[in-house]
Amino acid sequence: MASLLSDEEQAVHETTRQYCQSQLLPRVTEAYRKEDFDPKILKEMGELGLLGATIQGYGCAGVNSVAYGLIAREVERVDSGYRSAMSVQSSLVMHPINEFGSEEQKERYLPRLAKGELIGCFGLTEPNHGSDPSSMETTAVKTSDGYILNGSKTWITNAPVADLFVIWARETENGKKGKVKGFLVEKGAKGLSSPAIKNKLALRASTTGSIFLEDVHIPVEYKLPKASGLGAPFSCLNNARYGISWGVMGALEDCIARAREYALERNQFDRPLASFQLVQKKLADASTAATLGLLGSLQLGRLKDQGTWAPDMVSMMKRNNAGTALEHSRVLLDVLGGNACSDEYHIGRHVANLQVANTYEGTHDIHALILGKSITGIQAFS
Amino acid sequence: MASLLSDEEQAVHETTRQYCQSQLLPRVTEAYRKEDFDPKILKEMGELGLLGATIQGYGCAGVNSVAYGLIAREVERVDSGYRSAMSVQSSLVMHPINEFGSEEQKERYLPRLAKGELIGCFGLTEPNHGSDPSSMETTAVKTSDGYILNGSKTWITNAPVADLFVIWARETENGKKGKVKGFLVEKGAKGLSSPAIKNKLALRASTTGSIFLEDVHIPVEYKLPKASGLGAPFSCLNNARYGISWGVMGALEDCIARAREYALERNQFDRPLASFQLVQKKLADASTAATLGLLGSLQLGRLKDQGTWAPDMVSMMKRNNAGTALEHSRVLLDVLGGNACSDEYHIGRHVANLQVANTYEGTHDIHALILGKSITGIQAFS
Amino acid sequence: MASLLSDEEQAVHETTRQYCQSQLLPRVTEAYRKEDFDPKILKEMGELGLLGATIQGYGCAGVNSVAYGLIAREVERVDSGYRSAMSVQSSLVMHPINEFGSEEQKERYLPRLAKGELIGCFGLTEPNHGSDPSSMETTAVKTSDGYILNGSKTWITNAPVADLFVIWARETENGKKGKVKGFLVEKGAKGLSSPAIKNKLALRASTTGSIFLEDVHIPVEYKLPKASGLGAPFSCLNNARYGISWGVMGALEDCIARAREYALERNQFDRPLASFQLVQKKLADASTAATLGLLGSLQLGRLKDQGTWAPDMVSMMKRNNAGTALEHSRVLLDVLGGNACSDEYHIGRHVANLQVANTYEGTHDIHALILGKSITGIQAFS
Amino acid sequence: MASLLSDEEQAVHETTRQYCQSQLLPRVTEAYRKEDFDPKILKEMGELGLLGATIQGYGCAGVNSVAYGLIAREVERVDSGYRSAMSVQSSLVMHPINEFGSEEQKERYLPRLAKGELIGCFGLTEPNHGSDPSSMETTAVKTSDGYILNGSKTWITNAPVADLFVIWARETENGKKGKVKGFLVEKGAKGLSSPAIKNKLALRASTTGSIFLEDVHIPVEYKLPKASGLGAPFSCLNNARYGISWGVMGALEDCIARAREYALERNQFDRPLASFQLVQKKLADASTAATLGLLGSLQLGRLKDQGTWAPDMVSMMKRNNAGTALEHSRVLLDVLGGNACSDEYHIGRHVANLQVANTYEGTHDIHALILGKSITGIQAFS
Repeated sequence: MASLLSDEEQAVHETTRQYCQSQLLPRVTEAYRKEDFDPKILKEMGELGLLGATIQGYGCAGVNSVAYGLIAREVERVDSGYRSAMSVQSSLVMHPINEFGSEEQKERYLPRLAKGELIGCFGLTEPNHGSDPSSMETTAVKTSDGYILNGSKTWITNAPVADLFVIWARETENGKKGKVKGFLVEKGAKGLSSPAIKNKLALRASTTGSIFLEDVHIPVEYKLPKASGLGAPFSCLNNARYGISWGVMGALEDCIARAREYALERNQFDRPLASFQLVQKKLADASTAATLGLLGSLQLGRLKDQGTWAPDMVSMMKRNNAGTALEHSRVLLDVLGGNACSDEYHIGRHVANLQVANTYEGTHDIHALILGKSITGIQAFS
Repeated sequence: MASLLSDEEQAVHETTRQYCQSQLLPRVTEAYRKEDFDPKILKEMGELGLLGATIQGYGCAGVNSVAYGLIAREVERVDSGYRSAMSVQSSLVMHPINEFGSEEQKERYLPRLAKGELIGCFGLTEPNHGSDPSSMETTAVKTSDGYILNGSKTWITNAPVADLFVIWARETENGKKGKVKGFLVEKGAKGLSSPAIKNKLALRASTTGSIFLEDVHIPVEYKLPKASGLGAPFSCLNNARYGISWGVMGALEDCIARAREYALERNQFDRPLASFQLVQKKLADASTAATLGLLGSLQLGRLKDQGTWAPDMVSMMKRNNAGTALEHSRVLLDVLGGNACSDEYHIGRHVANLQVANTYEGTHDIHALILGKSITGIQAFS
Repeated sequence: MASLLSDEEQAVHETTRQYCQSQLLPRVTEAYRKEDFDPKILKEMGELGLLGATIQGYGCAGVNSVAYGLIAREVERVDSGYRSAMSVQSSLVMHPINEFGSEEQKERYLPRLAKGELIGCFGLTEPNHGSDPSSMETTAVKTSDGYILNGSKTWITNAPVADLFVIWARETENGKKGKVKGFLVEKGAKGLSSPAIKNKLALRASTTGSIFLEDVHIPVEYKLPKASGLGAPFSCLNNARYGISWGVMGALEDCIARAREYALERNQFDRPLASFQLVQKKLADASTAATLGLLGSLQLGRLKDQGTWAPDMVSMMKRNNAGTALEHSRVLLDVLGGNACSDEYHIGRHVANLQVANTYEGTHDIHALILGKSITGIQAFS
Repeated sequence: MASLLSDEEQAVHETTRQYCQSQLLPRVTEAYRKEDFDPKILKEMGELGLLGATIQGYGCAGVNSVAYGLIAREVERVDSGYRSAMSVQSSLVMHPINEFGSEEQKERYLPRLAKGELIGCFGLTEPNHGSDPSSMETTAVKTSDGYILNGSKTWITNAPVADLFVIWARETENGKKGKVKGFLVEKGAKGLSSPAIKNKLALRASTTGSIFLEDVHIPVEYKLPKASGLGAPFSCLNNARYGISWGVMGALEDCIARAREYALERNQFDRPLASFQLVQKKLADASTAATLGLLGSLQLGRLKDQGTWAPDMVSMMKRNNAGTALEHSRVLLDVLGGNACSDEYHIGRHVANLQVANTYEGTHDIHALILGKSITGIQAFS
């Protein structure tokens, strides 16, 4: 793998890896137990240039998409929750501002988001429309000088600690529903609340919430001027999905490394578990999946940087890598035997997290149907 | 299924079901969150005759093995942890006392265990020998009037709240190691401690601990007189595994019912999830697995009551049912989409629990090799 | 298993087994190579009472459904093609005559079909409607004294050697299409032809053909008087599917026995293949599937004889057993290594056959949707 | 994919594709039916420069490893048997002569092998040692002027039509067994015979035989001078495995294209099969596997050309691609419904072939253990 990376990519990789292993790994077990996300983490990432890393200017690192993928991989090697917090900030908040925002919006928000001084979240998903954002119910009713937002969003990463909310809503004028538009809403806006969802069974090291918008007034300059229609949030999702495809491979690699180490150290029947054929097969299968998944994401990143990627390639790699990471991490969990349910061995946490990674931003089945449509030309959702 | 059960079996089934749904279900979510086992639950089960239910006399219900299986199924329909607590009491504590104990021991302990006034635990597994109890390191050194026990056990269900410890140790006399024997150790014995293992990733509604034995003196009458060699604890394990094979089917049935209900109520793309072919396949596969697993356990129970069962049948059903329950519960979890990681939908909790059920009392792989030995005559463990 | 069978059932089982192993097994390899079905085989089966065995009277054996299942199991232990020929004769030709025929029809045909003097076939499936018989295009236009049949059928087992064709066609009167009805057409009828389909990749020991009906005149007394609507052929299919569910288990059992024997005899790396953990797991998985599949079919047979079975139970067992037999036979084929592609080891032939068994009389997916509809109440075919 | 290839690679790809689709595809069905390999095919390939294509000089094309992979992919898109015949000629006969032969041997054989005027075969595998060539029994007893070969080989592609046999045998001098050496034996040598193995269940479009060597005298100059020990044949196998990893992807791509086309054209329940979610998922899964497998082989080819590949990478890609091609081709076969067993739809033939491709040159399990050893450092074969 390393031989396929440029020096700059390797440098980003190494910096991120060192930070994650030395700074994130030691706190993740306790954070996960207590379901406690420390917002300082985004500041630390910001200092290293890991936020919005592909953006040129505005205090961002301006690295390429492969480097961004390597960041996601290293962060998720520790925990999918940390990677989620980072992904949201980079792909779902900074990306749309950079892509669809006014120059003023970019200057106002991007530098502080890049430093982690501001935390952002992405309000697209609604309680009744997890897989189908085209049925969006949140409205932005046009007034003389702006918009009034009403609606609710759920399962929003970072929402409880967010300073800036990218809210997607259907523009409505004179009672007529129009296109989906994006709005920037700052914390403290009247009518805005974002309570945490607690007692999650996964991603407990990141924080997740609902967003409620009750008659939230937004001046017109808080609309993202270049976003019109679902293409805009879908562009964000494609960026995020690309990052997930890298991130989950990091989690899988961590499971492989930990299962391998355990199997070498643990003896049963007077020989190491690693000498069992049934254990070797598990490791061989998982390593193959990780190798191919990484190759695929790398290739996708190269195409992205060349501007020749296509959305169905993203669906393929997000679906394959998340699905395969989940499948093999579960198999590797069994290598731990009774210790599988101890959080000190980490694999169980990855397994729980990866189930969500396999589900969010397009479930495994939804991406199957996206691919199916791309292959057959026939839509089979509805 | 119902048509294959006797009236008595159906009555036991119904009683247990009502208790579990009305008394256990309402507290399980909170108990799991707080990792908190309420010992009163065993008292409640005792009142209903659910503990040591197959034992004749000593205040026990004296029902058949199928009825015992139905109890396990209904308790685990709520939570594998509750079923574990019950299984340990019945199969791993009361069964060995009844089978290998003296008349005095039976009279002393069984009635109070049956009522749940005493809680028992089973100390076989050691930290270094999860799958291979024949390498047991715990010793019982014979003295003039009893034994001195030394060693440690781990991942012991009920240990932190146990009043009575069934401890398996290698009898040692004049420095010569002999057979494995069983000992009854009461809480408070000098040198005995059983701290809880906290922060478990599964089975959080039951309590699990380690057992440390440092020079614990036991009078000779606390030895189980009829237990000699590993056959005795294996007999306990076979009983417990039989119960697991029923229990996990209850958990799977609950996942099916909940996924089905969710899929019928939840609309995406303007139609219920239940109308998706991909969802119907998941439900069809899981229902088939549940039907066959229950039929298998039922048949095994009939053979057990006839006295014609064999250990490899137990391995087959424990392995198949735990494996299949885990596999399909994971698939059904995906039906919940983003709500999969909310504990209010219950399936995620079952998934976490079933990973342990698939591992304890013989992992999926160990039982494969037990079956492999039975089929080929060749031992492939070592 | 044996302990669950009555003496009569065991006797039928033993008789069939002896016949199949001594008379069918020696000719199957050559028959499969040459794609050559010997019609004498049905005569031999007839002599033993294996045809239409559940029918009372008319020269039939009158055994119960479990005995019928055991016959299918033993015949398919040799080859799915032989079992197909037998199933068609029993479930798809003799059953509808017995169930929906007139007394005259029964007396005319059943005794000779029971002896194998006449060979029958079942003309339901059409070239364009493999999974959806309700779109049937074949018509039976009512005339003054009978019917004129037009249409075509395909993939019809036994057709090229059949003396009697049970043809399903849509009754049409005065240009108005009515219900599907059943008709008995004898070989030699003007306008009837049934050429063989050659070069099949599976089921080569049985013969398969198309049926073409061009203005075939049928007197009214050749209509099955009690069959009206698709319920009649579906009743036949349910009987046949029940038999398939038993039969495929016989094929799987044969694969297990042969793979086991090979693994014990074949050494690699100076030890028998049977000592490899990866091989033992294959055998353990397959044995478990066979045990559960047989238990399920047995239970289904008992319910059938009690009159309490339901069509979705048949779908479940046909789908599960055919699917599982195919899956595990493929895995077991790999045990043979390079010898897998030699027909002298038999497993490869079973694998090819079982793909068809998993597809015909309702594919694996179609039965998933039948079960899905039964579980959810929602039809997801169309 | 195309964007990752050089112009030369694309040209080789296109030439091969046109030849295969126009010249090989029209004859494969009949050849497979009759189990008949036409040696002229190698001459045709020779004319196009497809044999020994990576060799520099000696009338060979001298293309890179990726181009070689593309050749394998296009040939196997038609049939694995044709690719096998080509692979053997290129990787297992021409490669060892080029790598381990004397200048004289190269000049004598390579140009005629490159043209397909001579057909070669590779005699390594013995009847009792399919997976373990280190137990080789064939001997080459040193005499004053050469060697006397004795032994037998089996499942040898091309053997019945071969003009040149590369035979691996254990050198024996004065009764002492030494290293494995390679020998060139010409057709007609006294004591050499190579009868065909008939009635194969797969790879019927290529020819396979045994080789018997009874006191075959070979002058010393027919020994490959630079081959000593199993490293030499293993080098051949690694080249061949690399080609297989590409080839099987071609077969899988053909299955995808054919299943897709069938699903679009075939209606059931008044809509195309391609509109079924269950069908779309099959296509999506298979397409993902093909994409990743091709990317992996491409990357492996690049490393091979850079001289930085490692044998365990070859094991990974051979195992993954053959396994995945087999798995998904089987799933796609089901899309054909009843037509699956007609050879005119091609997928069934691919399925049968791919089972062998998944087995030969290292079974799926053997490569799992090779990878397992590479990951853990522990050998688990014996």
